[in-house]
Amino acid sequence: MERIYKEALRLHKRTHGKLEIISKVPLETRTDLSRAYTPGVAQVSTAIGKQKSLARIYTIKQNTVAVVSDGSAILGLGNLGPEAALPVMEGKAALFKRFAHIDAFPICLATQDTEKIISTIKYIAPVFGGINLEDISAPRCFEIERRLQAELDIPVLHDDQHGTAVVVLAALINALKITQRSKRHVKIVINGAGAAGTAIAELLISYGIMHVVLCDSQGVIYKGRAKLNSAKHMLAEITNRSCLKGLRADGCIIGDLTSALRGADVFIGVSAASILKASMIRIMNKEPIIFAMANPIPEMMPNAAKKAGAAIVASGRSDFPNQINNVLAFPGIFRGALDHKIKKITTSMLLQAAHNLAGCVKNPTTDQIIPSIFDARVVPAITRAIL
Amino acid sequence: MERIYKEALRLHKRTHGKLEIISKVPLETRTDLSRAYTPGVAQVSTAIGKQKSLARIYTIKQNTVAVVSDGSAILGLGNLGPEAALPVMEGKAALFKRFAHIDAFPICLATQDTEKIISTIKYIAPVFGGINLEDISAPRCFEIERRLQAELDIPVLHDDQHGTAVVVLAALINALKITQRSKRHVKIVINGAGAAGTAIAELLISYGIMHVVLCDSQGVIYKGRAKLNSAKHMLAEITNRSCLKGLRADGCIIGDLTSALRGADVFIGVSAASILKASMIRIMNKEPIIFAMANPIPEMMPNAAKKAGAAIVASGRSDFPNQINNVLAFPGIFRGALDHKIKKITTSMLLQAAHNLAGCVKNPTTDQIIPSIFDARVVPAITRAIL
Repeated sequence: MERIYKEALRLHKRTHGKLEIISKVPLETRTDLSRAYTPGVAQVSTAIGKQKSLARIYTIKQNTVAVVSDGSAILGLGNLGPEAALPVMEGKAALFKRFAHIDAFPICLATQDTEKIISTIKYIAPVFGGINLEDISAPRCFEIERRLQAELDIPVLHDDQHGTAVVVLAALINALKITQRSKRHVKIVINGAGAAGTAIAELLISYGIMHVVLCDSQGVIYKGRAKLNSAKHMLAEITNRSCLKGLRADGCIIGDLTSALRGADVFIGVSAASILKASMIRIMNKEPIIFAMANPIPEMMPNAAKKAGAAIVASGRSDFPNQINNVLAFPGIFRGALDHKIKKITTSMLLQAAHNLAGCVKNPTTDQIIPSIFDARVVPAITRAIL
Repeated sequence: MERIYKEALRLHKRTHGKLEIISKVPLETRTDLSRAYTPGVAQVSTAIGKQKSLARIYTIKQNTVAVVSDGSAILGLGNLGPEAALPVMEGKAALFKRFAHIDAFPICLATQDTEKIISTIKYIAPVFGGINLEDISAPRCFEIERRLQAELDIPVLHDDQHGTAVVVLAALINALKITQRSKRHVKIVINGAGAAGTAIAELLISYGIMHVVLCDSQGVIYKGRAKLNSAKHMLAEITNRSCLKGLRADGCIIGDLTSALRGADVFIGVSAASILKASMIRIMNKEPIIFAMANPIPEMMPNAAKKAGAAIVASGRSDFPNQINNVLAFPGIFRGALDHKIKKITTSMLLQAAHNLAGCVKNPTTDQIIPSIFDARVVPAITRAIL
């Protein structure tokens, strides 16, 4: 890891950032300038002034996405502010171009106030065909996304939530297939109830999974637990269903992560490094599925999880099999949204995207539940789902 | 003009906008991704999180400018809104790249409220090394620029004001030289007291020109005229100096544009098309200088102005000699500001820029008072001034 860190610093210093904005039109003669700029451009502006929708024909709007962060939840690093978020957003923009030919531009906001973030994004929206929210901490991210989806006529997606959820569900579909588990009976524990954990729980439940338990730093989330914020209150309503049935005495799971894992089939970690122990895997059901996605240090190293009895292990790391990486989802999601002029990306589109992504692996095995990010079929498969 | 309009529409339709955002780093292997994105980028973010100024080393900030408009004063077209402004801002961004290797991105705002524009630009500023304000109507543009200059630590320049003023002053320096006029005695009338007219008046006065009279749609601006807004009130204080001296009865110019032009040496038009007549040129001093810069239709066609007796004629048009075009100034101004890490572009820098620009024409003639925009010496000459 040290080597990669040094190489990354050297690369960023040498290039002074990863993006370049170039002209698609020639600007070598006065005639070139008169077409691309004054006086010719006046005709283009006049046409758009009369009919706003022509911006999608004559301008970059139809292929341009804003990658917006306030720097409050940068990777696994936390709240380092907008300048520190910029290299990540640039990287994301570069990936948009590499994988989906989308022109993406980083917007890093010098405010972490929910209302100010919402209004700023609304005011800069005319240039963009879509808004990718990124690395904004929970629970503010939920309100920001919901409000912008309601108030803008372009798709808005918080990728930490939904990109992650799509890839996790795709990997899970194949993992369940291999271990012959059904969505009705599989028992899943998610550790981490921030942006990713929340969206994963919601998407798994929409997919039809019945038994999902969420844990945060205080332990299992259950209905009636003290001091739940509104997002977690909602989660308590839809997860840990034994509680919902009023069977707390004998059915509801209350306690810490270990108590939740007893008899569970799947562990999905999207929170703290190194939290999972071999003893915890051994109290899960036979042949458990472990998605240890904390970055860059997973909840448990994949080889150790295998050794402790895990049938299938996935992580966020590229140096082990089954890398669960958002880049499998977001390029195709926005490619589809732009191509199909989608105004809102719905849960059913995301379910279809996960289904299509899982289908890119024809014969899943324990070491291949998810396709490679360099598999050329991935982006078209996701694009087809956003319709 | 009709032909250029058709070609412009066709070009914009074919290219779907004029800008493309590309990656400067390779993204072909997992190792590439680990350096440009996770996990390597975490180290870059951590470094910037500790020391914000490193953003200028590791990110696009050091070479990226926002071209920001609210669409309230698009070219000569007026208030057509942010979508209609986008092709103009894209064109400007393309010119930034073509002439000064600057990565510029268009920001078109869905608000025309002064305070909301100011706060939106402040919140998106972390990504940018400079802010080019564009096509924002007067008098809001003055307040917006002044406040942002005070509140941001990156240079903010309203190009309609200062870019125009620099090029006009450069052209004027050479025109005065050719016609052997001194800055102390030359009498200048500016028609148009919006963004451009105001900044031109201020820069000419800073340069040392003593006699400047401004006209707006109500006629000559003078101290004590009814219903002057605060910007025009300030202009009345510094222009039309006879009034300042309390010689209104025999010295102050009061009346319409024609009354102002009587005995004047220079007409600078930055307002309405076709407002200047041959009879008005004939009441000016001998060998008058005419800058007819309304776009795309000048205040008077250059050949007609010549025929009426003008010694030197300049316009905004590329199909006549002496094209006064902002693209002579803004690329070099921002190149200098970025290269020299300037926090505020001052009047003395702009005066030096005009001086250097005028100097690009070694032997000025009536048909060459300003260099061509394709003259490779222009951008370096301006860049050297912003120091």
